[in-house]
Amino acid sequence: MTKKLRMGMIGGGTGSFVGDIHRKAASIDGMIELVCGAFSSTAEISISSGKALNLAKERCYSNYEEMIIKEKALPVGERMDFVSIVTPNNLHFPNAKMALENGFHVVCDKPLTLTLDEAFTLKKIIKDSGKLFALTHNYTGHPMVKQAKAMVAHAELGVIRKIQVQYLQGWLSTAIEKTGQKQASWRMDPKKSGIGGALGDIGTHAENLTEYITGLRIDEIAADLGKFGKGRVLDDDGNILIRMKNGAKGTISISQIAVGEENNFAIRIYGEKGSLEWHQENPNRLITRWLDQPQKVYTANGNGLYPEALAASRIPAGHPEGYLEAFATIYKNFANHLNAVNKGESVANPDYPTVDDGIRGMKFIYAAVKSDKNNTCWIKV
Amino acid sequence: MTKKLRMGMIGGGTGSFVGDIHRKAASIDGMIELVCGAFSSTAEISISSGKALNLAKERCYSNYEEMIIKEKALPVGERMDFVSIVTPNNLHFPNAKMALENGFHVVCDKPLTLTLDEAFTLKKIIKDSGKLFALTHNYTGHPMVKQAKAMVAHAELGVIRKIQVQYLQGWLSTAIEKTGQKQASWRMDPKKSGIGGALGDIGTHAENLTEYITGLRIDEIAADLGKFGKGRVLDDDGNILIRMKNGAKGTISISQIAVGEENNFAIRIYGEKGSLEWHQENPNRLITRWLDQPQKVYTANGNGLYPEALAASRIPAGHPEGYLEAFATIYKNFANHLNAVNKGESVANPDYPTVDDGIRGMKFIYAAVKSDKNNTCWIKV
Amino acid sequence: MTKKLRMGMIGGGTGSFVGDIHRKAASIDGMIELVCGAFSSTAEISISSGKALNLAKERCYSNYEEMIIKEKALPVGERMDFVSIVTPNNLHFPNAKMALENGFHVVCDKPLTLTLDEAFTLKKIIKDSGKLFALTHNYTGHPMVKQAKAMVAHAELGVIRKIQVQYLQGWLSTAIEKTGQKQASWRMDPKKSGIGGALGDIGTHAENLTEYITGLRIDEIAADLGKFGKGRVLDDDGNILIRMKNGAKGTISISQIAVGEENNFAIRIYGEKGSLEWHQENPNRLITRWLDQPQKVYTANGNGLYPEALAASRIPAGHPEGYLEAFATIYKNFANHLNAVNKGESVANPDYPTVDDGIRGMKFIYAAVKSDKNNTCWIKV
Amino acid sequence: MTKKLRMGMIGGGTGSFVGDIHRKAASIDGMIELVCGAFSSTAEISISSGKALNLAKERCYSNYEEMIIKEKALPVGERMDFVSIVTPNNLHFPNAKMALENGFHVVCDKPLTLTLDEAFTLKKIIKDSGKLFALTHNYTGHPMVKQAKAMVAHAELGVIRKIQVQYLQGWLSTAIEKTGQKQASWRMDPKKSGIGGALGDIGTHAENLTEYITGLRIDEIAADLGKFGKGRVLDDDGNILIRMKNGAKGTISISQIAVGEENNFAIRIYGEKGSLEWHQENPNRLITRWLDQPQKVYTANGNGLYPEALAASRIPAGHPEGYLEAFATIYKNFANHLNAVNKGESVANPDYPTVDDGIRGMKFIYAAVKSDKNNTCWIKV
Repeated sequence: MTKKLRMGMIGGGTGSFVGDIHRKAASIDGMIELVCGAFSSTAEISISSGKALNLAKERCYSNYEEMIIKEKALPVGERMDFVSIVTPNNLHFPNAKMALENGFHVVCDKPLTLTLDEAFTLKKIIKDSGKLFALTHNYTGHPMVKQAKAMVAHAELGVIRKIQVQYLQGWLSTAIEKTGQKQASWRMDPKKSGIGGALGDIGTHAENLTEYITGLRIDEIAADLGKFGKGRVLDDDGNILIRMKNGAKGTISISQIAVGEENNFAIRIYGEKGSLEWHQENPNRLITRWLDQPQKVYTANGNGLYPEALAASRIPAGHPEGYLEAFATIYKNFANHLNAVNKGESVANPDYPTVDDGIRGMKFIYAAVKSDKNNTCWIKV
Repeated sequence: MTKKLRMGMIGGGTGSFVGDIHRKAASIDGMIELVCGAFSSTAEISISSGKALNLAKERCYSNYEEMIIKEKALPVGERMDFVSIVTPNNLHFPNAKMALENGFHVVCDKPLTLTLDEAFTLKKIIKDSGKLFALTHNYTGHPMVKQAKAMVAHAELGVIRKIQVQYLQGWLSTAIEKTGQKQASWRMDPKKSGIGGALGDIGTHAENLTEYITGLRIDEIAADLGKFGKGRVLDDDGNILIRMKNGAKGTISISQIAVGEENNFAIRIYGEKGSLEWHQENPNRLITRWLDQPQKVYTANGNGLYPEALAASRIPAGHPEGYLEAFATIYKNFANHLNAVNKGESVANPDYPTVDDGIRGMKFIYAAVKSDKNNTCWIKV
Repeated sequence: MTKKLRMGMIGGGTGSFVGDIHRKAASIDGMIELVCGAFSSTAEISISSGKALNLAKERCYSNYEEMIIKEKALPVGERMDFVSIVTPNNLHFPNAKMALENGFHVVCDKPLTLTLDEAFTLKKIIKDSGKLFALTHNYTGHPMVKQAKAMVAHAELGVIRKIQVQYLQGWLSTAIEKTGQKQASWRMDPKKSGIGGALGDIGTHAENLTEYITGLRIDEIAADLGKFGKGRVLDDDGNILIRMKNGAKGTISISQIAVGEENNFAIRIYGEKGSLEWHQENPNRLITRWLDQPQKVYTANGNGLYPEALAASRIPAGHPEGYLEAFATIYKNFANHLNAVNKGESVANPDYPTVDDGIRGMKFIYAAVKSDKNNTCWIKV
Repeated sequence: MTKKLRMGMIGGGTGSFVGDIHRKAASIDGMIELVCGAFSSTAEISISSGKALNLAKERCYSNYEEMIIKEKALPVGERMDFVSIVTPNNLHFPNAKMALENGFHVVCDKPLTLTLDEAFTLKKIIKDSGKLFALTHNYTGHPMVKQAKAMVAHAELGVIRKIQVQYLQGWLSTAIEKTGQKQASWRMDPKKSGIGGALGDIGTHAENLTEYITGLRIDEIAADLGKFGKGRVLDDDGNILIRMKNGAKGTISISQIAVGEENNFAIRIYGEKGSLEWHQENPNRLITRWLDQPQKVYTANGNGLYPEALAASRIPAGHPEGYLEAFATIYKNFANHLNAVNKGESVANPDYPTVDDGIRGMKFIYAAVKSDKNNTCWIKV
């Protein structure tokens, strides 16, 4: 077997939800091992976090600059192969820039950057570096999302006409950012989060999944954003109309003040011949409907799937896979690509989100904010 | 028991879906009997339809004018008490006008009229006549809709912030109106349907249910309508943003080209403290979610309901009631009101949709069309 | 149109759940009208119930004997055509016997009779009378049950191997029969209910639906009954193994002490090639599964149905039909048969449950009780 | 952080489903690392499997005896801490015996052993060894199973009266064991599987989950087993009545010929005051029902959970956890226990299945087979 790829992590120290997720997701398929990290902007926490993860003492770094410099100084075959960035949005760009410019591949959490300008610059940096870059739009990793994409690609649904997306959470129903809740604090702070709140956190997932499954591009949007939590300057709710380049129309409804909703991310896509419906909270089912046949419900690793969907499953049908496995599929596909590159092989269409997806997401945020400020007028994405 | 109320019907001849529904709904609670009708604009069909319904020969009329005149000539206690109008939209106004002006109460299918002007005029006619007028927004009749309304009214959800409504059908996915399909033909003909297609047929239900449950008023909307069926001049799809007068925001997504959807009418309402979700296709459940408690799922005639919900159920919990019973509740509440009026009693808040609801619906259609023509700008309803 | 059939009712006076259901179910299709009744064993209540139903005063009878004698004395064309029996189990036999022997057709609630002996005798009486007899196993009236039966009959599932049935209610979780609750009181009284409690009330539905859908016969059963409610002499719970004559095996689990269950009647049938699953509480869906295809979900009046299923639907797909409509289909099919007979026509396979189904149900009760008394040994049905 | 525990694996070579699951489950929480293995009875495959897993060459052993002897010879702190046994049933006993007698703790797949005698002997060996022993009844690891158990333990449901369990699969609907399908072949071979087929494979899970959640013991069972696949000598289907020691009654229905079912494992438990329902295929929901309140639906990491349920969740509510995470919880709890023991600490009630659970499972298999051979008579477990 190919040796495991060595991962360094920036952010995700003790107590971080997303750091733990990335580590589990990276390791689950046995292709990647965590070898070092700069887990916090506070040196002490960074180092203690690394120790708690059983890392070698000398590879628990005080900050990301130190990590990148010292790792670079290690011999090939020992130094980290790539960096996983799980910091707040404002750090994505400097983290990724330095890693790439020092020769490390990057996996980065979404949204891509703090600003759209940064996003364009980052694209150039990636190109110049010749390194790989993956963005963790994890929901694209679900087997039933792969099946959905394949069904659209094989024209089973015909020309797409209508799209309905909802991503509803309730965890920011009250202004918990003022209570010191860490996840909420930076997400509701424009200096760390950017110009979008819910838009960046979940809206970009909605935008990305829409384009991933349909293979279409959003042409323009009209947005009405809400700031319901007391004293908020960033959106915590959004009602958005979309027009696709092919003429399809639809809605994207996002919210973090939808009381009692946990992670209700769902998509419905209607074509001329058929339609499909997927729910993140029950992710191993894909409901499809037809002009003149009964509903067909596909299940992960079940009957009648396309190879792309089967390839994304790990265990027998009926044994539920979840959030973690979908996330892991991003890392797995990235690792496969990196292994191939390392062997000097080329890969046709590596199936993980890239900087271009990240730029699409940033444009979506910017268009939504602009539309909202202009009384919901249509803005090109 | 009070004698049954005598109903005359306009429209709904042999083969009509909605005529049959209205007759069953009117009769199911044993309070109303059909005594006469003008079931078709073709005299022959009108009369044969009446006969097929076992009506007395002399009360199967050639047209509605004849019915109204001849019934008026019958002695009180024999003549019909009210008219049920189940004709295409363009006939609602002349049908209702003549009935009211000749002293008959009216139950009328939605949308209220062909034009908004007619709607205003009709309101005046009703007022001048002193007669009762009910509009059959049937979905308000479901026990779980009553429960939803009561929960909002009792402030269980707190201030409403977000509303998401979808009404998705697929039966007009192809241009079946060109094949002579009767239901489709008049609905896609602006002379019979008005300026709204799907807007009038299902959009008004969406608008009405939203306002019925929340007790709020839609302030303004921004609409992007679709005309996907080949050659259509009326909308068969709509993506609509809404702003409520209290500051709540939301979306209404309607479609008759959502392939494979049957009658997927669903509503989600989010307040500061709680939220609720109801699906017409599984109408005997009401899902509620809370800031800090587990989901609670109410069931028709089940535990923990408000009296309003219990009153709308007919059979023990777990025995599904459906479309017909909800429809019948409109007729039942109308009949109760009429019986009270006949006894000289007054009724505080008779629970059935009225001309005001109908005007709201017409304004909704007009605002949506205007917004759509003005590139989705916000239009007051 | 054929004149409406005239129905007389025994039992079902004011406040009765099942009487109201039968009246609504009989009338909903416009083929039957209630003309007379003996609604209670108390003359006064019987008469006041009839009046409350707007019946002619002279046809509100003091008791069923009077009704049968006086109706018989009326001229043909005026007298009732058939009797609907909705009394407690112990009265079914004497009610039906007198009706049949005086020339009236009969629709009777289940279970057939108080004892198995009565059941055999009744069969003979029916035969001798030449009259029609329908038993209201109402759940066989659902469109999706018809579809299930047709799919099995067309061998889509292959040879049936396994059957799993559950009929779970919670309304007798506490001994409410001691509080005077009328429904509970007679059901838990062996003099009125027979030797089976839950067995007769819901077990017979489970048995009947199993045999109706599969077209197979239960060969033998092994039962373990429970009497959990304080002081009960009749079963309120049962766990039953079944063996079908074709070699299939399965379970029937019934309960009236399943706290919180409303009317959770569900059936799963597994063949060599496919399987199906139906739930009474969500009756308009039929889930099917296959060796090598994805799940297919059929819906009432939806795509891909057999004519038998389509014929049992009344309204467009997606508009839920429920308990009442299924019940009505028994009456409709009975009425169609009776109308045909009245015209001297013969009907090949009238689709409603008959005395033979009733005898099967009684045998099932007896076998279950015998097995339970003999420590769950296998007993032939 | 405590150093990772070192795991050696027996069985689970390249291509094995369950080996991969155990490895992922063991590693996911970062507490355990695989250091060596004897992955196959074929030396060559064993070694190549180890290499493919990136194990040190010298710790890829030819067979389990070699592994145990050589690992024992390694210094403490390097040698493996425990053995994970994922071989066919017939090897569990010799594998575990040798490991325990040489001082290694054991995690073992279920069912415990080939025969009941072995099970008893193994218990003695474990006791004599003083080592820890965990049995991977993985379904007990789900957060919502923990919640169910806690609710019963806190008497929320009252005295348990009725239990309904189903574990339905369709993957052995045809005799695929004759096509060389590896999973099927040994499971349908009594020399490798024991006297139970489906009984051992899934029946023991059903038995275990029943006793785990309710805290009750099955007193006696009456079983009717099926052997539907052509030429099978072991059961592939079972319909089983159960009586609990506290007087509760119920059914366990298992099948591997339930065409189209994937892993439909579900349990319903009814007490005097409340009831609960859990489905493995949608494992993050727990439905509860009550005498006089609406349904409450608990969700993993959601509102209103007991600490035991919260402790078993890894990620925020609404992000589905699945099969793997539940499996991992067995390993995590075992690792926590082992770490405590290694520090000389005692642990009150380590929450993972033990040899006693394994013996219960074996007794269940034996009782079911005996009952089936004796025409379904009741047999004490």
